[in-house]
Amino acid sequence: MSADGRQWHVVIAGLGLMGGSLARAWQGQVGRLTGVDPEPGARRAALAEGVVQAALPGIEGVRWQPSDLLVLATPVQTSLAILQRLPRLAPQGCQVFDLGSTKAAVVAAMDALPPVFQAVGGHPMCGREVSGWGAGSADLFHRQTFVLSPTQRTTPALRAALLALIAAVGAQPLWLDAVRHDQIVALTSHLPYILAALLMQQVAEAAETDPAVWPVSGGGLRDMTRLAGSDPTMMRDILITNRQMALAALDDLDARLASLRTLVATGDAAALAAWTTAARANRRAYWQAKWDNASGVD
Amino acid sequence: MSADGRQWHVVIAGLGLMGGSLARAWQGQVGRLTGVDPEPGARRAALAEGVVQAALPGIEGVRWQPSDLLVLATPVQTSLAILQRLPRLAPQGCQVFDLGSTKAAVVAAMDALPPVFQAVGGHPMCGREVSGWGAGSADLFHRQTFVLSPTQRTTPALRAALLALIAAVGAQPLWLDAVRHDQIVALTSHLPYILAALLMQQVAEAAETDPAVWPVSGGGLRDMTRLAGSDPTMMRDILITNRQMALAALDDLDARLASLRTLVATGDAAALAAWTTAARANRRAYWQAKWDNASGVD
Repeated sequence: MSADGRQWHVVIAGLGLMGGSLARAWQGQVGRLTGVDPEPGARRAALAEGVVQAALPGIEGVRWQPSDLLVLATPVQTSLAILQRLPRLAPQGCQVFDLGSTKAAVVAAMDALPPVFQAVGGHPMCGREVSGWGAGSADLFHRQTFVLSPTQRTTPALRAALLALIAAVGAQPLWLDAVRHDQIVALTSHLPYILAALLMQQVAEAAETDPAVWPVSGGGLRDMTRLAGSDPTMMRDILITNRQMALAALDDLDARLASLRTLVATGDAAALAAWTTAARANRRAYWQAKWDNASGVD
Repeated sequence: MSADGRQWHVVIAGLGLMGGSLARAWQGQVGRLTGVDPEPGARRAALAEGVVQAALPGIEGVRWQPSDLLVLATPVQTSLAILQRLPRLAPQGCQVFDLGSTKAAVVAAMDALPPVFQAVGGHPMCGREVSGWGAGSADLFHRQTFVLSPTQRTTPALRAALLALIAAVGAQPLWLDAVRHDQIVALTSHLPYILAALLMQQVAEAAETDPAVWPVSGGGLRDMTRLAGSDPTMMRDILITNRQMALAALDDLDARLASLRTLVATGDAAALAAWTTAARANRRAYWQAKWDNASGVD
């Protein structure tokens, strides 16, 4: 099993936003690329654009070599199903990597692979609310954090090769325990999605009875509901596989909502001013910590 | 009292984002412009840039003529305080307009003005999370909805003149009852602000103990917290003057949160898929209704 990804045959399962972007970004960085997607249109486009050398409707058609790298770029529950049947499909093992939105369930499934497998969990922090092959681009990962989660099947060789391949697409690797990752993304990604979707639902219902709702809305509502457009299957799998962390984030938010509701109900001007002032201070501190020193930020 | 705004002396109270932008946009559209702001920096800049012909620290310095137009571009509670002392300052009356974020309280205060006053409530739907004179621009109102709320002091002459002045800055006027306006913006603007601020608070606290929080966040969190940076005094006044509508919006959201929590807790895959699918459908329908036919949208 080679540590040099440039010679690998890479099989990317899922030619959506993430898999399609990685396929484009890894052109010339790896050996042969095979794309796997049940959707004929995605396979045709990936072949026609010369991004992959082969395209299959399912991973059952692959004849696995131990040096092959399988990249799971599918909704998390699909990735879990593939990991479960992988030992039967590739009895001599192979290398496995994934791009899934939650890590604990995936890493547990990777831990359960026979020792002939090597595996690392991954999650590039560049999700978008658009999906499909056409939404992808080679520079999607550029300057983005790429979380890597170790598993019991992580070898130094695979670790080193993936680090090189991630550096090659311009991303910044960050090794992070799967549970800690899931706890963080529940706050930074899954809770924001839930709020965007709930807000969208609430305003859409109001708009059904009052035609002035859309005219009397602006860029704030637009940005606050963008995530509601995220891929439904991906989000369903996230809410199922990160249930405990999502619930904890929701309960925390619920307590904060109750406090704020009391503040609004009492109309305490000084307390409300302190609250709105703290909100701006938090936002400025976040901006400074996260974006001020980042380049290439939109 | 002339119906032709091009001859008016316009006094803009508040040279922040809204007042500063309107002052720039109305250059050449009205007669003399006086800017009022307690902050010397804003007054100096407005004078130096030739946007206003006079600048005062407070409206007490104005010698009012009945044909003057006072534009209240201050936080709502400041506007209410000015409306209360206006009859004493301008015993012969004047024309009044405002740009406040909530309308019911302002319109009630305008209704209470002596009959020598003419008044219309207003709210341009182009708020941003930045504030101050420097954040303003003449094209802020371009292609945006400009809500106008009638009062008991609204005359056909003022109505016609303001419509012409609003058309001149490229905005789309929309006459809307103050209470209905406040009900809508509670959903489209105030609830989004509250959610952005609560989310920012929750994630910022997590980041205090885990340095991986900011790296493991992306554009979703950035957009979902943007509104938390809104001007604290403006937002405090909004939450105070639109308390009942904000509370109703919060209670509605609370019920939706509870339902979603149950869905996540039970892990019902089919129900969660229906929920995430509806979220995307709602978002797409909103986009089509609001933005698809709009030009000049960022």
